[in-house]
Amino acid sequence: MNRLIDLSQKIVDKMDVHPYDDGVKLYQDKFLETDQYNNYKLEIGMHAGTHIDTPMHLLESKSYINEIPLQKFIGRGSLLDVRNEKIIKYKETYDDIVKKDDIVLLLTGYSEKYGTDTYFNNHPVIDEELANFFVEKQIKMLGVDLPSPDEFPFEIHKILFRHNILIIENLTNLFELLSINSFEVIAFPLKIRAEASMVRVIARVK
Amino acid sequence: MNRLIDLSQKIVDKMDVHPYDDGVKLYQDKFLETDQYNNYKLEIGMHAGTHIDTPMHLLESKSYINEIPLQKFIGRGSLLDVRNEKIIKYKETYDDIVKKDDIVLLLTGYSEKYGTDTYFNNHPVIDEELANFFVEKQIKMLGVDLPSPDEFPFEIHKILFRHNILIIENLTNLFELLSINSFEVIAFPLKIRAEASMVRVIARVK
Repeated sequence: MNRLIDLSQKIVDKMDVHPYDDGVKLYQDKFLETDQYNNYKLEIGMHAGTHIDTPMHLLESKSYINEIPLQKFIGRGSLLDVRNEKIIKYKETYDDIVKKDDIVLLLTGYSEKYGTDTYFNNHPVIDEELANFFVEKQIKMLGVDLPSPDEFPFEIHKILFRHNILIIENLTNLFELLSINSFEVIAFPLKIRAEASMVRVIARVK
Repeated sequence: MNRLIDLSQKIVDKMDVHPYDDGVKLYQDKFLETDQYNNYKLEIGMHAGTHIDTPMHLLESKSYINEIPLQKFIGRGSLLDVRNEKIIKYKETYDDIVKKDDIVLLLTGYSEKYGTDTYFNNHPVIDEELANFFVEKQIKMLGVDLPSPDEFPFEIHKILFRHNILIIENLTNLFELLSINSFEVIAFPLKIRAEASMVRVIARVK
């Protein structure tokens, strides 16, 4: 049995979301005692919590996330330790770590600030050289423990999207991968006709 | 690269739901041309589309789905072909097919009726002997291409729940597994503080 590590933030009522986004509502509308069953309802935008962005979020595209081939959402994981970098830059050592079709995770450590204003309003960003390195390597997805790998006007998003690299935002627990040699990332989004989707992201230790 | 088979129904606006459930709303609220990004919002109950039920749905329980250990949601899959049975009963051959900790999928073929009234109102059910067989085998989850493995008062649900077996409802494409010897089921729900969750269910051919 492989060890499984949960890299996802919890979806709860009134959870913290990006200043651009509407609040999340999660509430119980049926109760065992009176209705004979419990039921919860959810009102949520596609960019709350841990989620996957696709090109349609920022580019002219008619390809919804439910139409993207499943192989995109599962694959060899690689971790880059980028703690304490305000602007995250390319380093030569990454060339050996990152392989074609990887799902690359950036450990900034910023998930520790989740729940504070700093998390959304003053986070590290990656530079264009590093984004272009991911493009060259033809990775499947880039995952970050940040609300976004960049800020308005979101040029890093667009570089990745133009090359069909998806972005996982609001990851957590990435520090648990530091001691691990080899892992697979499993991150199948909902089969939803939208430009993005909430997702449970799991690292499976090999 | 293992072949991946999608066993999930699509989440769309006004999708068909169980008569007990409120309708689903999925709509675009931000548009690239005017807002510089696309965004969809979703209003949904936890039992719409392909989803996992936990004991809290029908029993006194304070264990939310986000608290259930991850190993419950991934495991060896086994398929039982139960097409053309109105009451689905135990058969001796199942004893060799089903192993401890399996995620057992029942192919009724009823997903072909998804989108019609018949699907929700006149579907096959499983009997207590078969439910008790799953309990004895200590399976992890039971998945069905039906809205439910039973009808009110949901005694089959309760037998399974009392033994901590979860239920995946509204699966599809199970016929694709008929020709496959060995597969893994991957069905991680959202990390949501609720009694159930939408889920993307994937069979990974071994």
